[in-house]
Amino acid sequence: MSKNNKISALSEKDGIIKPEIVSSQVAKHIQAFRKQEVSAAELIEKIILGDRVALSRAITLIESTNPIHFEKANEVINGCLPYANQSVRIGITGVPGVGKSTFIEAFGTHLTSIGKKVAVLAVDPSSTLSHGSILGDKTRMEELVKDELAFIRPSASGESLGGVARKTREAIILCEACGFDTIIIETVGVGQSETAVHSMVDFFLLLKISGAGDELQGIKRGIMEMADAVVINKADGDNIQKAKMAQIEFNRALHLFPIKDSDWQPKVTTCSSHTLDGITEVYEIILEYISQTTQSGYFNSNREAQNQYWMMETINEQLKNSFYQHPEIIKELESVKKQVVQHKISPFLGAKHLLELFKK
Amino acid sequence: MSKNNKISALSEKDGIIKPEIVSSQVAKHIQAFRKQEVSAAELIEKIILGDRVALSRAITLIESTNPIHFEKANEVINGCLPYANQSVRIGITGVPGVGKSTFIEAFGTHLTSIGKKVAVLAVDPSSTLSHGSILGDKTRMEELVKDELAFIRPSASGESLGGVARKTREAIILCEACGFDTIIIETVGVGQSETAVHSMVDFFLLLKISGAGDELQGIKRGIMEMADAVVINKADGDNIQKAKMAQIEFNRALHLFPIKDSDWQPKVTTCSSHTLDGITEVYEIILEYISQTTQSGYFNSNREAQNQYWMMETINEQLKNSFYQHPEIIKELESVKKQVVQHKISPFLGAKHLLELFKK
Repeated sequence: MSKNNKISALSEKDGIIKPEIVSSQVAKHIQAFRKQEVSAAELIEKIILGDRVALSRAITLIESTNPIHFEKANEVINGCLPYANQSVRIGITGVPGVGKSTFIEAFGTHLTSIGKKVAVLAVDPSSTLSHGSILGDKTRMEELVKDELAFIRPSASGESLGGVARKTREAIILCEACGFDTIIIETVGVGQSETAVHSMVDFFLLLKISGAGDELQGIKRGIMEMADAVVINKADGDNIQKAKMAQIEFNRALHLFPIKDSDWQPKVTTCSSHTLDGITEVYEIILEYISQTTQSGYFNSNREAQNQYWMMETINEQLKNSFYQHPEIIKELESVKKQVVQHKISPFLGAKHLLELFKK
Repeated sequence: MSKNNKISALSEKDGIIKPEIVSSQVAKHIQAFRKQEVSAAELIEKIILGDRVALSRAITLIESTNPIHFEKANEVINGCLPYANQSVRIGITGVPGVGKSTFIEAFGTHLTSIGKKVAVLAVDPSSTLSHGSILGDKTRMEELVKDELAFIRPSASGESLGGVARKTREAIILCEACGFDTIIIETVGVGQSETAVHSMVDFFLLLKISGAGDELQGIKRGIMEMADAVVINKADGDNIQKAKMAQIEFNRALHLFPIKDSDWQPKVTTCSSHTLDGITEVYEIILEYISQTTQSGYFNSNREAQNQYWMMETINEQLKNSFYQHPEIIKELESVKKQVVQHKISPFLGAKHLLELFKK
């Protein structure tokens, strides 16, 4: 049995194991570890020491929908918190077909080649239906998957974007505590997932390819305003000229937007995930952003604002859940909605009626 | 005592009275009517018959923060609902200095000159502090104020945008029931007020003036994407050329945005509220929009979606209010927020802690 076979024989949930440590002895140890109930304290200790198996287990714990796991998951997160927060968090979005996986493979491999420890997570609220489209097909990241400095984890599944996003955000804390200094969060932009990802990263990157000159059409509302960089991928061969044209158009368009709170002027660049041209430059843009926003104080104040945002969002989501999952509301909501839509009662009276039912 | 004096002697809350009916006898009747407790049924009946004094009183009732008025206000709104909804609702936004009042004066006067009945309302959540900046200075709308086909009402005051917006949205229903077929909602865009106005109107108009060639800088995030028309005001005298240049730039910029759900391609036009050049054209654009969206079915489906949105928004707002006004939450919120911001506890644990306090 070759090393690679042993790696792929490990469950996806165990994350990626350093190839050199996968001896049959270690594999046996991992099997034993998987079966055994590990305490929160033990998980924390192992994560802090950089143990990926423990990291994977802890993320699985976070993702569990079993209520008995909640307490333990919270304990692990809180234990990891003091060791977290020392990383650069990069959000990457782009519609299917722009080559997100190959870009992340090229970009991530560049990062590990300069000694960075890279964790790749994903927010894909559609993954429950599609059985994990994002990062699920790991064959597309062949190199990164085997990279001992990289950790790749598919999107959590869940009923709501809020749930999926929360799990990913908690996973960031665990990855950071485990020593990963660069966290990449991928999203395909289903629903409001870009907004969710944008609110958990330091830098937001929009991946595009050059098209037929109408580059800007079809970009989802609000995405351009969130982007700190637009990277035009597949700038190789016959595409180079078109990519350069797209770069000009995006640059012009980005100048039309209001100045960002970060004072950062979004950059547009081209790259090829195949020839690797321009990949280094993408990282240089990110470094420039970090340098500028660290100096201005925005980097930290933004993280603080994000923490606060996530607390408020969680509260709001839970309040809404407790309302919309209330048996009386489930029973009445559609009929009240119908009356409101048809102008039979005012929206405010409809709301009042439902709130009274809820309070009973 | 001249007619005009009598008009201005009437309280603002009574709205604008048709000049011809302000004889001393009628004024006496109004005084009596004001003092007397009028039943909801009576108010509804009078509103439907086009009585502006009753309309003003009902709006005052809606705006009342006295809980004993809530029931009656709801009764009046519900009684008016079957007679509402037959109008065109136009939202107008623009920063101070673009000439919103003079534009509305010119535009509104054009509308009444072709027989339209025009109600002008406002959403200005800052009005509590500034004592009603929007429409408060009615001298700017000298003609429209005296126009028997127009009804002008300053922004409701209130602690929250949600409250102010709700009151305005209910006032729309009453104005429509009173026979006003064109409702103009003005906002200066404090906080999220454009979003609130956008979600209660059929057509959203952004008023601008030509500047020094950097027309697009300084436009608040998201406003351009909401605009169905950009109207460049003050296109007169030396300004005409600059206004035309601004028109070209806005046209180019608007084409960069994703196609709207309404399939409407936003228009850019110029006008002068002084020479009245271009005022007719603004209304023609709105008529074209109505014709197109009525045919496509968007006009109605949008109103239905808006009704539903307002019900949901009201529910969410009330749920949040009951949480954030809870004595335990008021006591603990700041300290938990601080711990979350400083990475001492995770946002989710902070939320959990507060939610547990709330549920107790």
